[in-house]
Amino acid sequence: MTDLAAVKAALRTQSVETPSWAYGNSGTRFKVFTQAGVPRSPREKLDDAAQVHEFTGAAPTVALHIPWDRVDDYASLAAYAQERGLRLGTINSNTFQDDDYRLGSVCHPDPAVRRKAVGHLLECVDIMDATGSRDLKLWFADGTNYPGQDDIRARQDRLAEALSEVCARLGDGQRMLLEYKLFEPSFYTTDVPDWGTAYAHCLRLGEKAQVVVDTGHHAPGTNIEFIVATLLREGKLGGFDFNSRFYADDDLMAGAADPFQLFRIMFEVVRGGGFGPGVAFMLDQCHNIEAKIPAIIRSVMNVQEATAKALLVDRDALAAAQRSGDVLDANAVLMDAYNTDVRPLLAEVREELGLDPDPVAAYRRSGWAMKITEERTGGRQSGWGA
Amino acid sequence: MTDLAAVKAALRTQSVETPSWAYGNSGTRFKVFTQAGVPRSPREKLDDAAQVHEFTGAAPTVALHIPWDRVDDYASLAAYAQERGLRLGTINSNTFQDDDYRLGSVCHPDPAVRRKAVGHLLECVDIMDATGSRDLKLWFADGTNYPGQDDIRARQDRLAEALSEVCARLGDGQRMLLEYKLFEPSFYTTDVPDWGTAYAHCLRLGEKAQVVVDTGHHAPGTNIEFIVATLLREGKLGGFDFNSRFYADDDLMAGAADPFQLFRIMFEVVRGGGFGPGVAFMLDQCHNIEAKIPAIIRSVMNVQEATAKALLVDRDALAAAQRSGDVLDANAVLMDAYNTDVRPLLAEVREELGLDPDPVAAYRRSGWAMKITEERTGGRQSGWGA
Amino acid sequence: MTDLAAVKAALRTQSVETPSWAYGNSGTRFKVFTQAGVPRSPREKLDDAAQVHEFTGAAPTVALHIPWDRVDDYASLAAYAQERGLRLGTINSNTFQDDDYRLGSVCHPDPAVRRKAVGHLLECVDIMDATGSRDLKLWFADGTNYPGQDDIRARQDRLAEALSEVCARLGDGQRMLLEYKLFEPSFYTTDVPDWGTAYAHCLRLGEKAQVVVDTGHHAPGTNIEFIVATLLREGKLGGFDFNSRFYADDDLMAGAADPFQLFRIMFEVVRGGGFGPGVAFMLDQCHNIEAKIPAIIRSVMNVQEATAKALLVDRDALAAAQRSGDVLDANAVLMDAYNTDVRPLLAEVREELGLDPDPVAAYRRSGWAMKITEERTGGRQSGWGA
Amino acid sequence: MTDLAAVKAALRTQSVETPSWAYGNSGTRFKVFTQAGVPRSPREKLDDAAQVHEFTGAAPTVALHIPWDRVDDYASLAAYAQERGLRLGTINSNTFQDDDYRLGSVCHPDPAVRRKAVGHLLECVDIMDATGSRDLKLWFADGTNYPGQDDIRARQDRLAEALSEVCARLGDGQRMLLEYKLFEPSFYTTDVPDWGTAYAHCLRLGEKAQVVVDTGHHAPGTNIEFIVATLLREGKLGGFDFNSRFYADDDLMAGAADPFQLFRIMFEVVRGGGFGPGVAFMLDQCHNIEAKIPAIIRSVMNVQEATAKALLVDRDALAAAQRSGDVLDANAVLMDAYNTDVRPLLAEVREELGLDPDPVAAYRRSGWAMKITEERTGGRQSGWGA
Repeated sequence: MTDLAAVKAALRTQSVETPSWAYGNSGTRFKVFTQAGVPRSPREKLDDAAQVHEFTGAAPTVALHIPWDRVDDYASLAAYAQERGLRLGTINSNTFQDDDYRLGSVCHPDPAVRRKAVGHLLECVDIMDATGSRDLKLWFADGTNYPGQDDIRARQDRLAEALSEVCARLGDGQRMLLEYKLFEPSFYTTDVPDWGTAYAHCLRLGEKAQVVVDTGHHAPGTNIEFIVATLLREGKLGGFDFNSRFYADDDLMAGAADPFQLFRIMFEVVRGGGFGPGVAFMLDQCHNIEAKIPAIIRSVMNVQEATAKALLVDRDALAAAQRSGDVLDANAVLMDAYNTDVRPLLAEVREELGLDPDPVAAYRRSGWAMKITEERTGGRQSGWGA
Repeated sequence: MTDLAAVKAALRTQSVETPSWAYGNSGTRFKVFTQAGVPRSPREKLDDAAQVHEFTGAAPTVALHIPWDRVDDYASLAAYAQERGLRLGTINSNTFQDDDYRLGSVCHPDPAVRRKAVGHLLECVDIMDATGSRDLKLWFADGTNYPGQDDIRARQDRLAEALSEVCARLGDGQRMLLEYKLFEPSFYTTDVPDWGTAYAHCLRLGEKAQVVVDTGHHAPGTNIEFIVATLLREGKLGGFDFNSRFYADDDLMAGAADPFQLFRIMFEVVRGGGFGPGVAFMLDQCHNIEAKIPAIIRSVMNVQEATAKALLVDRDALAAAQRSGDVLDANAVLMDAYNTDVRPLLAEVREELGLDPDPVAAYRRSGWAMKITEERTGGRQSGWGA
Repeated sequence: MTDLAAVKAALRTQSVETPSWAYGNSGTRFKVFTQAGVPRSPREKLDDAAQVHEFTGAAPTVALHIPWDRVDDYASLAAYAQERGLRLGTINSNTFQDDDYRLGSVCHPDPAVRRKAVGHLLECVDIMDATGSRDLKLWFADGTNYPGQDDIRARQDRLAEALSEVCARLGDGQRMLLEYKLFEPSFYTTDVPDWGTAYAHCLRLGEKAQVVVDTGHHAPGTNIEFIVATLLREGKLGGFDFNSRFYADDDLMAGAADPFQLFRIMFEVVRGGGFGPGVAFMLDQCHNIEAKIPAIIRSVMNVQEATAKALLVDRDALAAAQRSGDVLDANAVLMDAYNTDVRPLLAEVREELGLDPDPVAAYRRSGWAMKITEERTGGRQSGWGA
Repeated sequence: MTDLAAVKAALRTQSVETPSWAYGNSGTRFKVFTQAGVPRSPREKLDDAAQVHEFTGAAPTVALHIPWDRVDDYASLAAYAQERGLRLGTINSNTFQDDDYRLGSVCHPDPAVRRKAVGHLLECVDIMDATGSRDLKLWFADGTNYPGQDDIRARQDRLAEALSEVCARLGDGQRMLLEYKLFEPSFYTTDVPDWGTAYAHCLRLGEKAQVVVDTGHHAPGTNIEFIVATLLREGKLGGFDFNSRFYADDDLMAGAADPFQLFRIMFEVVRGGGFGPGVAFMLDQCHNIEAKIPAIIRSVMNVQEATAKALLVDRDALAAAQRSGDVLDANAVLMDAYNTDVRPLLAEVREELGLDPDPVAAYRRSGWAMKITEERTGGRQSGWGA
């Protein structure tokens, strides 16, 4: 039997970090469709993020991307966030949008380019000091497009050297989250293509280095919850970038493509003791064609629903069925939780927190979308390029 | 025994159409790296294409992309091409880069958007009349990102209606090549996702409608040469967009990722009677990080090498082994051709045509790369956006 | 607004055919684990199938596989079924387990082997006449393992010839369902690898030939509901082989791996008018490690739950959101139905039919499992080989 | 410039271990096709393996599979091998064909089953002591088919405990090679699904534990040569199971499906210092439909050809191109080696060793196939089950 009060208590504590870039324009290599009302500055992104938190109560922190969110005064930005009930979260580096990075950044064959890239990463730690952020999230676009283009192994050596220097710079209470990705924008090799590579580097780097799992970054057929369970067992799961994909790194709303998978992932998080401060729940999404703020609200809700179902699993019954080798019963215990409609439960949790039980509807009624469409005219909309 | 003289004669007749857009800048959603010397106009693209043809003798036509190659006077552009030993080839439409196309073009739920898209396609036929092009190549980015977003079946009805109108507009000797693609830029559904869908539409449209196979547009594990053989058997293979991929639609140089696959495809073309005017050999590539002109020369050469090997297959011996059910012998006959180093043979063919046996080296010696780097300063470089 | 009474009425009419072979032993190439109580004859398979129908009320027909279910007197077998409230359903042919079929059956290079295979298919139609079955389901293991092994196109010619002869033999009211499969047991080419190939053959064969979709037979990333919508639009969807897969043709319980996908498929069935006699709902599963009868009951229930959710979709609201281009609203309408817990609704439907609301629990209480374990000793258990 | 004499010298030293089970019958879950002349005992398998070595000069060791090759007196079997110019090689364990292993072996929820499985592994080490084998190859079929079936993480604990006990039992000079595999025969989770999991276990186990890479055991899109380079860099690559696949674990002849990939793998082996005694080159194949002995000879030759091409890469030129960032030149250096026809070079190497330059033809002339077909009548052919 699951303890409903405990489930609700756990759900009340869950927070999902939203990424500043999801509020800006995004697209594919074919087209970036612009949307009316999109923020033109980091402050306007925070304004939008504050809406998400206001209606969900579950998105108190916002991840920044440098240089897209570069400002002169990070302390001032942090204060701006605080006034809106937010905190600045993870700092995401960018070593893929400068012309120098055509053949890589920290893995580039030219030491001067590597130096520049490491310099950027160190700047990100400086920013963390200013913002009070705990986590530096590192995703490298590094890789090659053609066999022979560069030395696979030498690139690992260069990567290790760069990571080591950055890790040494981290202060107490700061962490480095290393992200892996199967492919894109590199097509032949990617320098951190899988969890094994990220894990091997993090192991050498020590306790401050942790692996981050982006749910869209795996080969077809990969069992992501297995990776989650394994990394938790090894003490090396630092967090998630949640999003959905049907085929590649589609960056759709979390829970939109395979809600059962998201549930299974959250179940391994709960089962493995990952439901706590050590594992960061973050979104990393691109709302190319849908309205951005309600899409982010919906994504937060989808994570909550998957979590609620995971918490509802009757773990004693599950363990008993597993021990007895009853395949059907064990599966049925899990499915019983998954098939539960947890929306009423989450509505209760919201009402107990003084929130509207239907965050999307409440947001729509708020008039915010019309307000930003009217007010945010002129200037340059934020996007991946800025 | 293969007849070497016949193989060489066939190789002399082979031509590969190069795409104007491959001479311009391209990239991923993360970054478009610009390169020095990139063309700033359709005429400069033709200048570069003329280099490819000068050194390979096998790339006499250039595909245009509308609106990227829109000019006021297509007859004048055709004359410009002719002066450089080229002809204008396939016209490629673009119904994915206008803000109106956020939810699709010919499949859009709004009839006004569909009308606009069809208008563009009809404009492309007008251009074909002016350029003397035979083929209209249609690739639709249409699709949806989320389950429920639109009605899958209604979109097929809209697609059929648009294709029918455009097909009816084609003149004698003009064709419509319908391209399919698994995913990207749409992630949940694509309105022409596979050869079966393209085939079903082309069948209803009649003889002028043919399927085009882009080698990078399939799900993992798909046997492309099977599709080639099947479409040839059905009389519905209109041509190829050659390129390479390791995972998705990577658009790398043809033959770079899986040269054995390209050979198998070319073998089915030869075996199925597709080595003739009815099947267009085209490149559709993006040279994001490598020098563009020599990459295109290399790609043409890779197609030639695969073709040479396909022509070298001892088909009598193969048929005998197949009839006798000798799996190993049949495979060995095919592999014997594949394992042959055909570079000397192709060098001979080139010398007989008065060409340098090593096109890449000849291009490099020509000084063209330095010339365009110096001369093409100022102005706006061509890319996917223009 | 959905009409609950209509939904329940529709659910009451739904039937799912169970396959005789799912009651027997099965496994992988590594091992077939035997289970206690497994049937030793076609009659005992029918006894088990009767249990599934007794507790679900939704599995009145049983598919036979020839020669695994070969008997001397099919009329007598049909009568045996009828006494147990069942009917004999689809006849499945087998042209892959005779030593002669090492290199194929109807596509074999040797005409004598092809003759033998066609003879078997014609025998299956004879059996249909005796059993009163409507559908002949054809799945061919034909293909090749190595490039060059056989002529891809000639094999299509042979296939077409065989299908044509068998189709001509079908009587009024009889159909031929042609199944496609990406790979396995052939690894390089499969002679009917995708829906396009099956569709092209069925088109030429005429109205009696229809395509059957096995949900485990696609490449990764394939959108199955798109195929369903397309085949329904073309009038060529004959039925389903339901099962689940994570990577290949895993043949797990329907709805176990991706319940959201099964829901999306059922929604396209409902939307496309496929919820009627023309589209056969069949299971094709292997219960390698779990108890077979309750696994089949669970699978029937999973199909029912997906259907119930599909029927609950508010199609007016969906159409309105789609027309207006509101991506999030349209998706939300679909998800609202999916997120509904339909188990209480189905429990009501069952009770109204005089059934236990919990078929698995009722089956377990029945003592059948213990009975067959005790009684079915001696003899040879049924499996894929018999 | 590559040193041809050094290349030939290296090729002369290369040996490829052949697996005893490849000489016996194999198949898919659908059918095992038997072949005439297949061995009926471990000794007859060695007789066949001696043929492979006689004609290639490169297959001096034979891997055994326990219990398929269980004999009363392993010293006598080793002597029998030695008389035929062979040595007994890697010992492969089997913990997947006993009814007790339905839910796993070393990861089974029941400690009694785990105990039995560990006992078998320890028996394999005893056999190694008797045969003088260096390597114990561990592949576990362990996993689950359904979500919830068992506790993912607890299974890792059980696995670690078993591996630790077996590793402790290894003598000086003995190693444990841990194999990973994406899926099959388990479909939902596999307990060692990827190199990362195998690596993490081997790291804790210490120097005697190494990872083995089976080229058919990866998800689509996985870059295997990257894994090879990474494991070599970490000092954890113990060997290869070579074979080919188009989609899943097809176990076709090495080099048959993607010869370019095999070349790239061998290049990383050479580049990473893996061409030496520390990395075992083994075949793991199933010749379901083709003649077995010549298929194995062909596979050894394919590995040799890929190796020859890898050795021919002009590494100085490659390094220079890579350093200068010339993508096309670097790729061209690699492709130049790949496009070379190395069959004449290998023919020379064979002739210098006193072998026939064409091993397959020589084998066919030898009359061995006819001899075993005539002599090996009666008795029970070897297969996966024995």
